[in-house]
Amino acid sequence: MEQYVVGIDIGGTNSVYGVVDARGTIVASGSMKTGSYEQVEDYIDELVKGLEFMIRQVGGKELIKGIGVGVPNGNFFNGCIEFAPNLPWKGKIPFAKLISERIGIPVALTNDANAAAIGEMTYGAARGMKDFIVITLGTGVGSGIVVNGSLVYGHDGFAGELGHVVMRRTNGRLCGCGRTGCLEAYASATGVARTAREILEICNKESILREIAPEDITSKDVFDAAVKGDKIALEIFEFTGNMLGEAFADFIAFSSPEAIILFGGLTKAGDLIMNPIRESMYKNTLNVFKGKTQLLFSQLKESDAAILGASALGWEAK
Amino acid sequence: MEQYVVGIDIGGTNSVYGVVDARGTIVASGSMKTGSYEQVEDYIDELVKGLEFMIRQVGGKELIKGIGVGVPNGNFFNGCIEFAPNLPWKGKIPFAKLISERIGIPVALTNDANAAAIGEMTYGAARGMKDFIVITLGTGVGSGIVVNGSLVYGHDGFAGELGHVVMRRTNGRLCGCGRTGCLEAYASATGVARTAREILEICNKESILREIAPEDITSKDVFDAAVKGDKIALEIFEFTGNMLGEAFADFIAFSSPEAIILFGGLTKAGDLIMNPIRESMYKNTLNVFKGKTQLLFSQLKESDAAILGASALGWEAK
Repeated sequence: MEQYVVGIDIGGTNSVYGVVDARGTIVASGSMKTGSYEQVEDYIDELVKGLEFMIRQVGGKELIKGIGVGVPNGNFFNGCIEFAPNLPWKGKIPFAKLISERIGIPVALTNDANAAAIGEMTYGAARGMKDFIVITLGTGVGSGIVVNGSLVYGHDGFAGELGHVVMRRTNGRLCGCGRTGCLEAYASATGVARTAREILEICNKESILREIAPEDITSKDVFDAAVKGDKIALEIFEFTGNMLGEAFADFIAFSSPEAIILFGGLTKAGDLIMNPIRESMYKNTLNVFKGKTQLLFSQLKESDAAILGASALGWEAK
Repeated sequence: MEQYVVGIDIGGTNSVYGVVDARGTIVASGSMKTGSYEQVEDYIDELVKGLEFMIRQVGGKELIKGIGVGVPNGNFFNGCIEFAPNLPWKGKIPFAKLISERIGIPVALTNDANAAAIGEMTYGAARGMKDFIVITLGTGVGSGIVVNGSLVYGHDGFAGELGHVVMRRTNGRLCGCGRTGCLEAYASATGVARTAREILEICNKESILREIAPEDITSKDVFDAAVKGDKIALEIFEFTGNMLGEAFADFIAFSSPEAIILFGGLTKAGDLIMNPIRESMYKNTLNVFKGKTQLLFSQLKESDAAILGASALGWEAK
């Protein structure tokens, strides 16, 4: 009888989940809005309904080996979501326990970016690599670090918060974490939109982006404008890419990865973001590492990677 | 018959070496000035003489299982010293091969800071820890990173160059590596001396340090003055500790270590440097990690730790 696992990816905006077979095919899936549930109990009620419906579709829970969850600030060691600044639920939530009690299937949980790294290693751009870093560029900026073939969890299960290294120590932007100058405050989707507002305000150059009310500009608007050759939009990607390259040079000094793999919404910008990152990374990297680390895009579809990565944890859930 | 290993630690200023038994006791040792040998061949000639003399003292080379070397920019994977900015010898030197050919004993080689981390894990402050970082504060600033019980070498053998993360992206000090703003340019012994010169120049406050010609001030002078309560000297440690704390907060975001262990000359300043580091590290650390990472001094004598750490590699040399 065919065995499956379930992968759940909880993002700041959307949650996606799917049933995955042993070959890495997603055979059923669903999604819901994370932000619509202020109480985690209400979120779980709705998620459990969705999971149960999906699991019935594939033949019932006897066929499900385990459930893996990828979630911001997810702690692999204790199965809790702890103090996630980009989620509606505060404090420490024993999420794996709450789900497994309701569904009756073992649940393992980790950081969403760690889940993406597992997915990339198993099915994507990091196949065969033992040392790499996945950087997720979405609502926030996250990371999954693999050293010598294993995920870096740290002593407490939370290692790999590379969105919160400090890039600007004076006059840094306020970050969602309450500190200032973090990479995430610049390179997340909201960071890119903020860069747009700042550049539009301090200069008088023409731009398609001026047709949008400043507070409504999104990173997608910047992308659309850049594709049309809008100079300000290109400058925004240049600024964002430059900062990511500076950050990556420091990451290389830490773990000297074979590759840094970019994942998430911002990667849709393709060369518009990749070229400035590559240039800045090369310029800023210490001589001994120069030119050794590949810069790659994820080879998995965004929603698939999240589900596949999380689901891989499901095989080990106990 | 008792078996031994040899540990060699090559620093920018001095080199030390010793014969170590299976219980970690240094039974014979020697030293030489690294900087006096412009040609690596001359250095090796002298080193080999010293090693052979020492090995005869303990009963001959039949008793030596292997030789471990800790050296800046030492590559564990190929046994080479590659482009070390703080050593007199340029380019890529197949050091392990050169030594093993002369002595007829297998040689393994790694970064000096990695060797210190192995020493700390085996005999020092990191006993029983699986996730920690050793920061060496000497002529340069180095690091040995341990994740899940293993040293982080990276894909090329050079991971852990934490002295070269960039702390000041505008008006940063020129570093020995050719870039600007690196941690090492501030927190190394020469960095501390430079901070002294800069602070003395921009203010008029009285200080014992004004009795020394600015270009002759060393980090030891700053320590001696601080012990006497000299306000400028204390301010210099405050500045240095603050920057180290900022850097450590970023390191914690990377690998979430159980402890950061300080090693090397600057640690002689004790609380004078530890207190400002601890305060700054706490202030700058992301909430999820706050208060979780211990800040410790090495528990090994400086020269012993280097020899012991390097020698531990000797047991595995092939």
